[in-house]
Amino acid sequence: MITVTRKSVLFVWLLLCMPLLVQAAEQLPSWQDTGPRQALVQFVENVTLDGSPDFIPVPARIAVFDNDGTLWSEQPMYFQVLFALDEVKRLAPQHPDWQTTQPFKAVLENDHKALAATGMDGMNRIIGVTHTGMSGAAFTDSVKAWLAKARHPKSGRPYTEMVYQPMLELLDYLRAHQFKVFIVSGGEVGFMRAWAEEVYGIPPEQVIGSRFVGQFRNSNGQLQILRTAHLEHNDDGPGKPESIDALIGRRPVLAFGNSDGDLQMLQWTAAAKGKSFVGLVHHTDGKREWAYDRTSDIGRLDKALDAATANHWTVVDMAADWKRIYPFD
Amino acid sequence: MITVTRKSVLFVWLLLCMPLLVQAAEQLPSWQDTGPRQALVQFVENVTLDGSPDFIPVPARIAVFDNDGTLWSEQPMYFQVLFALDEVKRLAPQHPDWQTTQPFKAVLENDHKALAATGMDGMNRIIGVTHTGMSGAAFTDSVKAWLAKARHPKSGRPYTEMVYQPMLELLDYLRAHQFKVFIVSGGEVGFMRAWAEEVYGIPPEQVIGSRFVGQFRNSNGQLQILRTAHLEHNDDGPGKPESIDALIGRRPVLAFGNSDGDLQMLQWTAAAKGKSFVGLVHHTDGKREWAYDRTSDIGRLDKALDAATANHWTVVDMAADWKRIYPFD
Repeated sequence: MITVTRKSVLFVWLLLCMPLLVQAAEQLPSWQDTGPRQALVQFVENVTLDGSPDFIPVPARIAVFDNDGTLWSEQPMYFQVLFALDEVKRLAPQHPDWQTTQPFKAVLENDHKALAATGMDGMNRIIGVTHTGMSGAAFTDSVKAWLAKARHPKSGRPYTEMVYQPMLELLDYLRAHQFKVFIVSGGEVGFMRAWAEEVYGIPPEQVIGSRFVGQFRNSNGQLQILRTAHLEHNDDGPGKPESIDALIGRRPVLAFGNSDGDLQMLQWTAAAKGKSFVGLVHHTDGKREWAYDRTSDIGRLDKALDAATANHWTVVDMAADWKRIYPFD
Repeated sequence: MITVTRKSVLFVWLLLCMPLLVQAAEQLPSWQDTGPRQALVQFVENVTLDGSPDFIPVPARIAVFDNDGTLWSEQPMYFQVLFALDEVKRLAPQHPDWQTTQPFKAVLENDHKALAATGMDGMNRIIGVTHTGMSGAAFTDSVKAWLAKARHPKSGRPYTEMVYQPMLELLDYLRAHQFKVFIVSGGEVGFMRAWAEEVYGIPPEQVIGSRFVGQFRNSNGQLQILRTAHLEHNDDGPGKPESIDALIGRRPVLAFGNSDGDLQMLQWTAAAKGKSFVGLVHHTDGKREWAYDRTSDIGRLDKALDAATANHWTVVDMAADWKRIYPFD
């Protein structure tokens, strides 16, 4: 039975007032009133104003965001890699051979030099043992358990607090204008889904990332999706527009990234038929966050920065354009 | 600028009244007041009633539907296959060798026996030349052009009218109760996305199906996603819970199918921790639609029917439980 309660009347009254409240409160309060904020507000107002020649209907308001370095920090190393290293230590008692086998020995001994020497092959083995071979549910549990106790080496804060306050506000601002917000990240999808809904308000079905082949298993009625070691999709570079096409099935009208791995996603969005918005977060703030771009091993921003200049994309200068970096600032 | 107009006040007033309107209008009018309708209404009211011990929060209200034989007909052959056969005829002038090469020769001569003799290999070649090797945008255009003029061989109606009126009502009923509805089908995802939003109100990002690897191409700034001939995912049988896990990232609470290809999706949904609803459309109506189950080559329903009996899943007897089949009835 459905009844109209006092609560629902209040709720509807709030709905009625929401446009006014949105207008009354300062939009994007952690953004300086500089170019990027102005460009964002102008774009959103232009494409959502009924009767505007650039009006975009609600179902087509698809916005995509990279995660590492765009929504949260990625220094001193991608947080997912820090999770994997911690997991090796947690799981070591069940794997006595790791004490003497690389790359695990290097992780257990905090020997960064030896670890680096194992290269991508070493990293892939570490990701393999910590991310695959278990059920999806068990992996989610391990990510949540790690997040509950792990702390960022520089700030001492939980990793889920190392998110950019201005970007949280941008997600809210877009949703208030009926954009559907997706993450499209090189990070592993199950890792992100474990916390993205709570931290960003982005539900699992709107989180796209790299993924391993999941295998349906039925053992006497006990069902699980086993995370196999076979990489199904690498959601980086051209993999981003490819997964956008495969999983979302339409062109975004707004895209934000921070590195060369986002270039093709930004190009794909910029080439939309109607109006679109393309933005880059430029890490220029060595004091409040980190400063890095063209020569960084993590989040290298070189070709995409040139493309932004050539195509007049919006580049956010973190030092100049953001009043606050983190929610705890 | 956001303003509260008369139109938006009216809209909010309508929102306020919606629960009453839903209650007032007869729910699911094309369903007989028999077991399946009663079970559906009881489930939905139970899990959406605030305070119910079985209450399911809105974000977790994920409903998944097979397409062929569940939302629209699949006889005398899957409509996507009929599209492929018509496409071979349309494209034949550009491929003179098809006049003498199987399986194309058989298609061009309407030689069903010779076509059948080419088996799955022949069918895969036909799907290959009609579904891959072009951009995603070009493929969508070809599907839409076909739908605009193709007619079903039995009814003479456009294929998009061969949808089940009771299921359209069920999709609306679920959405009115804030369920998020997905298609999870063995059909090719681009084929379905070309019309699913208009016909079912299901947006592209909620259509999951079999898919080919899409390849991002940049030819001097001309961007496209090329549909390659490499099958990335076969969304049938165990492939259904696998893609649900990979793409939706949480367990559905309602699932509907009609054939053994849906069995694992139904099992996966039935094994949810809280309440869930599992339904099968049983094709029992040889007069208004088609009657087939355990021995049919198309939409075989055998093991899943046994599982439904054993697990007390809801089985819709189309002849007995549906007042109408198609919107045009």
